[in-house]
Amino acid sequence: MAAFETRLPFASDYMMGAHPAVLRALTESNLIPAAGYGEDQFCAAAREKIRAACACPEAEIHFLVGGTQTNAAVIDSLLRPYQGVLAPESGHIAVHEAGAIEYGGHKVLPLPSRNGKLCARDVERAVLSYRQDETREHTVMPAMVYISQPSELGTLYSLSELRALHEICRKYGLWLYADGARLAYALASPENDVSLPALAELCDIFYIGGTKCGALFGEAVVIPTPGLIPHFFTMIKQHGALLAKGRLLGVQFDALFTDSLYLTLGSFAVDAAIRLRHALLEYGYELRFDSVTNQSFAVVDHDRKERLRETVNFSPWEPVDENRSIIRFVTSWATTETELRALIALLK
Amino acid sequence: MAAFETRLPFASDYMMGAHPAVLRALTESNLIPAAGYGEDQFCAAAREKIRAACACPEAEIHFLVGGTQTNAAVIDSLLRPYQGVLAPESGHIAVHEAGAIEYGGHKVLPLPSRNGKLCARDVERAVLSYRQDETREHTVMPAMVYISQPSELGTLYSLSELRALHEICRKYGLWLYADGARLAYALASPENDVSLPALAELCDIFYIGGTKCGALFGEAVVIPTPGLIPHFFTMIKQHGALLAKGRLLGVQFDALFTDSLYLTLGSFAVDAAIRLRHALLEYGYELRFDSVTNQSFAVVDHDRKERLRETVNFSPWEPVDENRSIIRFVTSWATTETELRALIALLK
Amino acid sequence: MAAFETRLPFASDYMMGAHPAVLRALTESNLIPAAGYGEDQFCAAAREKIRAACACPEAEIHFLVGGTQTNAAVIDSLLRPYQGVLAPESGHIAVHEAGAIEYGGHKVLPLPSRNGKLCARDVERAVLSYRQDETREHTVMPAMVYISQPSELGTLYSLSELRALHEICRKYGLWLYADGARLAYALASPENDVSLPALAELCDIFYIGGTKCGALFGEAVVIPTPGLIPHFFTMIKQHGALLAKGRLLGVQFDALFTDSLYLTLGSFAVDAAIRLRHALLEYGYELRFDSVTNQSFAVVDHDRKERLRETVNFSPWEPVDENRSIIRFVTSWATTETELRALIALLK
Amino acid sequence: MAAFETRLPFASDYMMGAHPAVLRALTESNLIPAAGYGEDQFCAAAREKIRAACACPEAEIHFLVGGTQTNAAVIDSLLRPYQGVLAPESGHIAVHEAGAIEYGGHKVLPLPSRNGKLCARDVERAVLSYRQDETREHTVMPAMVYISQPSELGTLYSLSELRALHEICRKYGLWLYADGARLAYALASPENDVSLPALAELCDIFYIGGTKCGALFGEAVVIPTPGLIPHFFTMIKQHGALLAKGRLLGVQFDALFTDSLYLTLGSFAVDAAIRLRHALLEYGYELRFDSVTNQSFAVVDHDRKERLRETVNFSPWEPVDENRSIIRFVTSWATTETELRALIALLK
Repeated sequence: MAAFETRLPFASDYMMGAHPAVLRALTESNLIPAAGYGEDQFCAAAREKIRAACACPEAEIHFLVGGTQTNAAVIDSLLRPYQGVLAPESGHIAVHEAGAIEYGGHKVLPLPSRNGKLCARDVERAVLSYRQDETREHTVMPAMVYISQPSELGTLYSLSELRALHEICRKYGLWLYADGARLAYALASPENDVSLPALAELCDIFYIGGTKCGALFGEAVVIPTPGLIPHFFTMIKQHGALLAKGRLLGVQFDALFTDSLYLTLGSFAVDAAIRLRHALLEYGYELRFDSVTNQSFAVVDHDRKERLRETVNFSPWEPVDENRSIIRFVTSWATTETELRALIALLK
Repeated sequence: MAAFETRLPFASDYMMGAHPAVLRALTESNLIPAAGYGEDQFCAAAREKIRAACACPEAEIHFLVGGTQTNAAVIDSLLRPYQGVLAPESGHIAVHEAGAIEYGGHKVLPLPSRNGKLCARDVERAVLSYRQDETREHTVMPAMVYISQPSELGTLYSLSELRALHEICRKYGLWLYADGARLAYALASPENDVSLPALAELCDIFYIGGTKCGALFGEAVVIPTPGLIPHFFTMIKQHGALLAKGRLLGVQFDALFTDSLYLTLGSFAVDAAIRLRHALLEYGYELRFDSVTNQSFAVVDHDRKERLRETVNFSPWEPVDENRSIIRFVTSWATTETELRALIALLK
Repeated sequence: MAAFETRLPFASDYMMGAHPAVLRALTESNLIPAAGYGEDQFCAAAREKIRAACACPEAEIHFLVGGTQTNAAVIDSLLRPYQGVLAPESGHIAVHEAGAIEYGGHKVLPLPSRNGKLCARDVERAVLSYRQDETREHTVMPAMVYISQPSELGTLYSLSELRALHEICRKYGLWLYADGARLAYALASPENDVSLPALAELCDIFYIGGTKCGALFGEAVVIPTPGLIPHFFTMIKQHGALLAKGRLLGVQFDALFTDSLYLTLGSFAVDAAIRLRHALLEYGYELRFDSVTNQSFAVVDHDRKERLRETVNFSPWEPVDENRSIIRFVTSWATTETELRALIALLK
Repeated sequence: MAAFETRLPFASDYMMGAHPAVLRALTESNLIPAAGYGEDQFCAAAREKIRAACACPEAEIHFLVGGTQTNAAVIDSLLRPYQGVLAPESGHIAVHEAGAIEYGGHKVLPLPSRNGKLCARDVERAVLSYRQDETREHTVMPAMVYISQPSELGTLYSLSELRALHEICRKYGLWLYADGARLAYALASPENDVSLPALAELCDIFYIGGTKCGALFGEAVVIPTPGLIPHFFTMIKQHGALLAKGRLLGVQFDALFTDSLYLTLGSFAVDAAIRLRHALLEYGYELRFDSVTNQSFAVVDHDRKERLRETVNFSPWEPVDENRSIIRFVTSWATTETELRALIALLK
């Protein structure tokens, strides 16, 4: 039987429940009756707040439960059967969704991952390669660009990088879709210059992650141009992604977008990660991937890794060579000062 | 913007949050760190309690978020591509899942619905018709029987009916799968003689519904013979049905299976429904479908329906003739004495 | 090992190779080089002849190999994932395609079969039932009407029936698709008043069957409004339905549409069927389904069926009661006068 | 309208109809009645001859129409939904099947292409990487190895390479599947040491290509262990890959496996290709990919390519740099001595 976890909790940003303010909102609304499937007053209120935060008063907002189902529902809804989605080879849909996109009939077309990110030039090259291929009608047409902000490696697209992707997508008629599973940590990073209104301006569709950013669960899909996806509600249902008590998503996102809680808890986690990375550098660790958000990747040798594992719950990432590997530490709204200090002390 | 609902809430059993005991458990466990994806201590504890309740100590238990995704994941995992699932034509998968089963590539093979239920003889007839068809290799092979306990119409399979289905399935090599979205209300019905251990003995797989029975959300899939579905975890992930914070499901089912809460809240709702049906009969309404659980179906004329709609939130069901239609009242753990009395008074 | 068939061949219209004129055209063109995948001179010529026959000079024509792959490619291309196709419950896609439509993710929505045909009123009822259903966004949207001309039971839609379907489809925004696997036998029936130009006017898409009508294999999809399906070529490829040597389809359809061969061979088979049905009636057999094309359905008792089986290769169809069943005789371009007389003599 | 092709025909091995002996067999059998769907005497005879050629008297043989549909039907039948197929990144299923494998729900897992081939070490590395990945249950499981013999680049697996792949597959429980679209040209190459019996011994399943090797169309799937795929007939039907007049496939494969025609016509084409490659080398062209079968790849500069294009129908392959690109010449059973000499003269 799974034992209680007593080690320092830095393995992921989904090891606790919800931020207390979110939980409080769930408790306070618990016995208020509401319509099902997201057609309730709580969702309506949350939608308004998200529209305001995105400076996009017309945006269509849908609430889903988790990231994989959101990616699958969005991609299946926008692509026609003969089309595929370009993604960095390290992208979540390319690796860690158990083939959910292929299950829906679409090929993920991998492009080079540059610290977890796609660059506009690689996208253009892929599109031109398709267009110049005399056999292209026998191949999968690239029709969407999938990015994550922040990337799976904690890096950020700058506003100019995002704009370049946007322009390439416009030029060639591709959809631009941003997976914001950890968006709070992007928005809160001192390195970030991509605001919610910028995402709404430059992406055809994106989602604001709740699960990893203070909610019990939940992702808010933002469609800046309403009506982009006909019958998206039914598509969500067909994907098994429609929550009966949609109210729970409304209540949580309402709380996250009240008094800037979403940004506040993002900042808290990013600040902790910055302190951790300073300590790691000071102690001589090699960092990887240039993460500027709540994930930190350090190279450790095998002995150190095994010793650390006894007292710290981190994520093994990937081997570097026979003796060394990369491990990941993740901070969140729930990281305490005590835990952070204890981790830093242990790493010395 | 969706207004607050002030009418009497009898439209469904998913209009409120969670039973207070469930919510309390979520609150109390909120800041305890735990592994993701259901591999945590809370899920482990809940699994033990469910195994005990099913008298099936070896059972494999998986927690998913909602009914449609559970049905799709189970059916896609057990069927081969050339196989289909027999279901009553009123079954949830046949009607109200937006084609989720077909999206996964499988045909739902409709059989007559007898007050929402399948009978063993109709199943046998379908299987024999397939077997005797000389063109059967050009058709979809029936390979699973899908039933709901209680049915979508509130009726129950008796133990002998379930045993007959079980025997037909054994005889012809079909899987027997029971959708228990409202199982608490079946178990609590005075008419019921199908216990959890009986379900575990007679079904290849079934699920214990949480969403409509006191939880915020969640369904517990019970596989009495462990290992029946290889890599079911990955199948769940591929269906977008794997909750990152699986702990939330563990905590809720642990609470529901502590001190028989699941049965207690089921009884509460069924008792209310029985009182409601007595009143309806007394007042001369025609009841439909012989529901013996928490749903009640009454025939009303158009005027009455429109008047009731102003003060009562019920579900329109289906037309009977030009002037009359069936409406549905649903009780739940959250129905208050005040609300029930008010409804009964209004119906007079 | 399968024995040579020496009985009278009336089991189907695909028991022989091709009409001699078709085979001759294949032989004569055999060593002429041509581009692959239907982009050759033979396909171009055949397309022109089909356009002329349909009085539809702009029509887009695609050649596929067989009926099931054609139905799947057409339906998957026109429907969005949340949409389904209305078909008579006896329709080929509903029964005899091994779930190919569901494999592509779409639900076949069965409607009553009236001697193998759909009636416009049933279609309208289904659409209105969908539109009036308050839970419709949880269900599959009917978005296409599938019919077969002639139907699987040999019956024909009259021009007024087809026009009624066309108008219902226009009114409610449904695609109208006609499966013409046996279209030659419809066009050649004295009862028929639906010409190729009428099909092109009233259907959004239909196919002219070759496999059962004189070709070795092949079906010509006619899209009266060119561009209706973007990238249909790629969709065909993705369905594994793109013939490398597309020329073979062009050559065959060119031959079939030269000197009205398609109609001539259809007439030949229908005339034989009419003589057969006259004989059957004269001898006191009960006919079923009102077939007016090349299929004839007769009721026989068990003894007669077993005796006939020794010398005649017919299709068992379905039981009528314990002692009697329906059997099917099919004529084709290949039926000889000798065979027909022998069959009629045996039936006496 | 597509013009008649008057240039020298070296673009592909599917530019003509069938080898005359194959066409003759079709003509001679044309009016002999036979059962549909491959259950006829011609298929039975062809199966026997293929079993003999493979020294595998128990082998199960299925005839399909084309390569893409064969690959899709085989892969969908052997893989479970959570599994994917390893293929060289240049493999036909990875590039040129318009996403047919993903359409069936399976991810193609690309591995490095070494002159078109997979090496056992790369397969093992991929499997170990999966097995050692702590998040593997969130990823697609590699469960099949797809190779082409000859590869898409004309190269051959040696017996020892094939044996190494076989052993890796056995060791890790993967299926080994060989696509033999051009198998005649492999079997006929002087470099080849992989016989049909060796394929039958070392592969779980493979197909013998007809379309590109003398038939009008058709691929013969060989399953050395009968019963490996339950209901494969229905899977073929569901994929729209079941030919109504299956006899046509039987007749053609019977002809191809009579008097070693399959090998003879393979030799003819390979000998022509060898002469062509000798000439190309003699004239100073750079060859690419080490093809030893009927495809030849040469580097030409832009001017030469444009000039050649006027009189020779070749395949553009891929750019090498700004000024040069690779072009492909394909010989076949239909290549004439006159055409070959003319081509060689033009290349000087």
